[in-house]
Amino acid sequence: MTTTIRKIGLLTSGGDAPGMNAAIRAVVRACAYHGLTAVGIEQGYQGLIDNQMYEMGARDVKNIIHRGGTILKTVRCKGFYEAAGRAQAYQYFVQNQLDALVVIGGDGTFTGAMLFAEEFGVPIVGLPGTIDNDIFGTDTTIGYDTALNTVVDAIDKIRDTATSHNRLFFVEVMGRDSGFLALNGGIGAGAQDILIPEEHFDLNKLFASLDRGYQAGKSSSIIVVAEGEEGGVYEIAKRVREHYPNYDLRVTVLGHLQRGGAPSCADRVLASRLGVAAVEGLLAGQSAVMAGMRDGRIVFVPFSDAVKKEHVIDNELIRISDILAI
Amino acid sequence: MTTTIRKIGLLTSGGDAPGMNAAIRAVVRACAYHGLTAVGIEQGYQGLIDNQMYEMGARDVKNIIHRGGTILKTVRCKGFYEAAGRAQAYQYFVQNQLDALVVIGGDGTFTGAMLFAEEFGVPIVGLPGTIDNDIFGTDTTIGYDTALNTVVDAIDKIRDTATSHNRLFFVEVMGRDSGFLALNGGIGAGAQDILIPEEHFDLNKLFASLDRGYQAGKSSSIIVVAEGEEGGVYEIAKRVREHYPNYDLRVTVLGHLQRGGAPSCADRVLASRLGVAAVEGLLAGQSAVMAGMRDGRIVFVPFSDAVKKEHVIDNELIRISDILAI
Amino acid sequence: MTTTIRKIGLLTSGGDAPGMNAAIRAVVRACAYHGLTAVGIEQGYQGLIDNQMYEMGARDVKNIIHRGGTILKTVRCKGFYEAAGRAQAYQYFVQNQLDALVVIGGDGTFTGAMLFAEEFGVPIVGLPGTIDNDIFGTDTTIGYDTALNTVVDAIDKIRDTATSHNRLFFVEVMGRDSGFLALNGGIGAGAQDILIPEEHFDLNKLFASLDRGYQAGKSSSIIVVAEGEEGGVYEIAKRVREHYPNYDLRVTVLGHLQRGGAPSCADRVLASRLGVAAVEGLLAGQSAVMAGMRDGRIVFVPFSDAVKKEHVIDNELIRISDILAI
Amino acid sequence: MTTTIRKIGLLTSGGDAPGMNAAIRAVVRACAYHGLTAVGIEQGYQGLIDNQMYEMGARDVKNIIHRGGTILKTVRCKGFYEAAGRAQAYQYFVQNQLDALVVIGGDGTFTGAMLFAEEFGVPIVGLPGTIDNDIFGTDTTIGYDTALNTVVDAIDKIRDTATSHNRLFFVEVMGRDSGFLALNGGIGAGAQDILIPEEHFDLNKLFASLDRGYQAGKSSSIIVVAEGEEGGVYEIAKRVREHYPNYDLRVTVLGHLQRGGAPSCADRVLASRLGVAAVEGLLAGQSAVMAGMRDGRIVFVPFSDAVKKEHVIDNELIRISDILAI
Repeated sequence: MTTTIRKIGLLTSGGDAPGMNAAIRAVVRACAYHGLTAVGIEQGYQGLIDNQMYEMGARDVKNIIHRGGTILKTVRCKGFYEAAGRAQAYQYFVQNQLDALVVIGGDGTFTGAMLFAEEFGVPIVGLPGTIDNDIFGTDTTIGYDTALNTVVDAIDKIRDTATSHNRLFFVEVMGRDSGFLALNGGIGAGAQDILIPEEHFDLNKLFASLDRGYQAGKSSSIIVVAEGEEGGVYEIAKRVREHYPNYDLRVTVLGHLQRGGAPSCADRVLASRLGVAAVEGLLAGQSAVMAGMRDGRIVFVPFSDAVKKEHVIDNELIRISDILAI
Repeated sequence: MTTTIRKIGLLTSGGDAPGMNAAIRAVVRACAYHGLTAVGIEQGYQGLIDNQMYEMGARDVKNIIHRGGTILKTVRCKGFYEAAGRAQAYQYFVQNQLDALVVIGGDGTFTGAMLFAEEFGVPIVGLPGTIDNDIFGTDTTIGYDTALNTVVDAIDKIRDTATSHNRLFFVEVMGRDSGFLALNGGIGAGAQDILIPEEHFDLNKLFASLDRGYQAGKSSSIIVVAEGEEGGVYEIAKRVREHYPNYDLRVTVLGHLQRGGAPSCADRVLASRLGVAAVEGLLAGQSAVMAGMRDGRIVFVPFSDAVKKEHVIDNELIRISDILAI
Repeated sequence: MTTTIRKIGLLTSGGDAPGMNAAIRAVVRACAYHGLTAVGIEQGYQGLIDNQMYEMGARDVKNIIHRGGTILKTVRCKGFYEAAGRAQAYQYFVQNQLDALVVIGGDGTFTGAMLFAEEFGVPIVGLPGTIDNDIFGTDTTIGYDTALNTVVDAIDKIRDTATSHNRLFFVEVMGRDSGFLALNGGIGAGAQDILIPEEHFDLNKLFASLDRGYQAGKSSSIIVVAEGEEGGVYEIAKRVREHYPNYDLRVTVLGHLQRGGAPSCADRVLASRLGVAAVEGLLAGQSAVMAGMRDGRIVFVPFSDAVKKEHVIDNELIRISDILAI
Repeated sequence: MTTTIRKIGLLTSGGDAPGMNAAIRAVVRACAYHGLTAVGIEQGYQGLIDNQMYEMGARDVKNIIHRGGTILKTVRCKGFYEAAGRAQAYQYFVQNQLDALVVIGGDGTFTGAMLFAEEFGVPIVGLPGTIDNDIFGTDTTIGYDTALNTVVDAIDKIRDTATSHNRLFFVEVMGRDSGFLALNGGIGAGAQDILIPEEHFDLNKLFASLDRGYQAGKSSSIIVVAEGEEGGVYEIAKRVREHYPNYDLRVTVLGHLQRGGAPSCADRVLASRLGVAAVEGLLAGQSAVMAGMRDGRIVFVPFSDAVKKEHVIDNELIRISDILAI
């Protein structure tokens, strides 16, 4: 069974990420280029359930490539994870004469898309949009590079401040389940140590690192901590304080500012390439796949792989972060 | 009794602030211009007690005008607040043939300078360097304008993120004792409400504001909270959560990143003007005064005023912040 | 004859400046706060002639405080400088039941407003919006502080590059008629010399300064040049090259990037205060005046003064720039 | 013949690029980690000829990871391209008991290194450091990602300004011989057209693109032009002006600001990984090779390939840039 693709619905879902607007622009303009109609769906899957959608032409996406957030908005929609919600969504999908979907988001977004594609035979291509970079099948996700720059820019400012002896700066970045942002951001920021879930937030390793730093004559150090919810770093800081009562500990919790900001050039180019690939992939018969970038080339990865397989951090980077913190 | 000024010692003290390096550069170059010798003292008053100082020429301060932090470093020095410490400091002051001091810092810095000037008759001019803007006698302090930009830049990124309904972003900025940074930063960031010490962190006013925002159809809001130590915002967030159990609250604690970063142009120009004024003020016989900028003009304010009088926030700004949050 | 003000038209005109959106937001919200209707007029005076206007409520200006440019757009409108154009504009002013205008722009904008106010007795308050800071009656204009930061940020990047011997970087900034941006930006950027119209682009002074820098052992220098049209710096660079054939000259022309970017906090607060003042000024009976900020206080300056008197640069700053370049 | 590597000389050469300091830090710290001595050579090959070098320990490279430029400085050294210069350099190489070199730079740097390695059997590993990305054998060069962000950040500001009809903004970026920066930067900036050497600066294609944009209702457009020397864009602008006399053309020449700025996180991580790889490559017997990154993995590419083969731009990106400009 093949569908002729004439009209493509487009939505962003889950936590937003810089570059989502660049992806939206690319999808809409690739549609215009190939003579298709693009339909923007607001508020993620909720807009599909609520029939909040409108046609988008090439001029409707002007002046958005550099904007953080998403003009289509995004919510975490519980209704779509229930059969009734998806049935309602499909009804509006048909009513609006959509032929396919492009969904931009993370794991949860693809899980919903996979179910919808299976149940109703709808062609769907997903684009990986999350600052966490925790998606299998793509080297990087849309928003990750920008968030890295946000993290190092923040830590650069912290490093400027007075280097009193025995001062430790703890900086909490996002990533309770995945250490990509903390590890790469920490290397980029010249952190003394980086606490990530993949290493079980190993405090003994931190103590050893701080002792080495003290021996080496370091006057102050920055510790990057990956966390999902805000403020978990305080518990770690408390335990470090107990271990080093003479150290002066300061905490910064970057929180949601990591999700915003103008996207980096790399994220814009990635989003632009993936957006065009999504449309052209649909035209070529792709479905239930995520469009990703591996080794500089577009790949299409089944949703089942993208959702179930893990994007593993490179242990070589952990080794390098230790060398650099000498 | 007049001293001929030939050699001027220079130090930064207290919490550091962007623009301190621009001030150092201006003092050193003004010395060079007027045929004086500048001597950089490291680690604030501690360097005076420990005899850590060296001559600085015009080329020694090249390429620092844009750098955060202070190349002379700064510590909070307890020793200088004791007579013995100041006596030791004076010994090295004499031994190094210094004729005067320029000290850059805040209230504590000026208190120490006032004592030193009184006890030993040393000519001292202070420069107001703090992000808090809580110094009487100058419209703005060195570092304040930069910190304001850091605050609004951070909140701009937060504002980018998805506008789910009933989401509140709490952003903690520095200023437990003074609401300048929070009030002006909050206005600049378009905050829904601003909690400052001058208004006793009035939660009832916050609840009324949030209720008005909800009535007005606001989907999400940013609340700026002034705090001295990191993390106090969590207690406020907890109480708001009890009052609005359905709201989704997120917290960012900017912490020390507010003290860093390349200084804004305004801070560089302010620091440059005050640095030149400090040297020329000493040459003109000023002592035990702070050089400040009021209404675009250099003023010299006695340390006793700078330390004891309060820099009061403009109530008109509070009124305007309420109008703008409608 | 007094008019009760119920409906206020609002437009931006002339070259745009960062912070214009913050001013728009403040005018609209102050209208909402005081129970007035705000009407946004697009494309400056052209929109008044063409009847392009629409009511704006408090929510229509959300999420714009941090955006460069102006959501109302701006064109330089020749038609309004002819009686016929203004007559047509007045017809739509009446037809839309407007009672007053707030116009945001520079000299040209105020000249038009002055004529319109005189001819038709329309209450108008102007807000100074231009990066040039060349308006009499206000210490700073909306957009000026942001442009200064853009200039120093650009020059900071240039300063990073290799310091080969005898290398000169020329940076052209805006300001053919007024040296504010060049002088303050140049001081903030640590320029070796600054060529401004107020000093008639004195090349002999530049040559003397470069010779001094060479004697002092400077390996490279930055020269800031004020210009109105792009590229005039090349003529100056050519003449310097003739004088110093062994120097390696590099040119950067910042051009229109100086007009854009997210406004600084200072510009947002200034725009917010002036926007509220414009509305409250109209309610208090002000007309044919510009709302400005002098010494931290709102002032209302007759258009005739704002247009005819000159905002003179502070010669003290020129003196300081020479001291700092030693 | 194998040499035991105990002491490694390190230099930066050619045009500087953001991230060079991060590479220096990584080389020095990898040396410290592996028990080797690092020797910093100043002013590129000139410092080898002039014997300007000093040992560097792990603490000597603190607080530099985020700085643009290079603390070792860089000049284009003609002497090293003559046999006599290299002989002199080798003499100091031996005298200082160096066993190997790490050189950071571009094509010219590697050409010199290749000659030096051939003539004297010196183990050398090169690191690709240039904003142009025109080096064969690595997906990206150190500095390229940062320069891309500088370009899009500048163009974002330009895009903010008033959208008058028929206004064209020309932005000149670096790259007379290679269009990487222009093509990727132009896509990231949402440019209407991009003129690059690989497409011979095709003005007819530009005219067709502008005509299409006009038909599509675009009110203003940004054209990115790759150039090696500053100001070549004016010639192109002149020819466009002749073709479209009614268009309002504005020019920005980014110039050397593209070489500066704090490096992006990606450039810091790349530089860090390559710096460690250079040291460990030398220990493993590599010589006369460049360490590059391809498909996320470290590769060692013979200097002869790095210098002679061309890094070709991806034609797919040109196609995508056309789709996105619809």
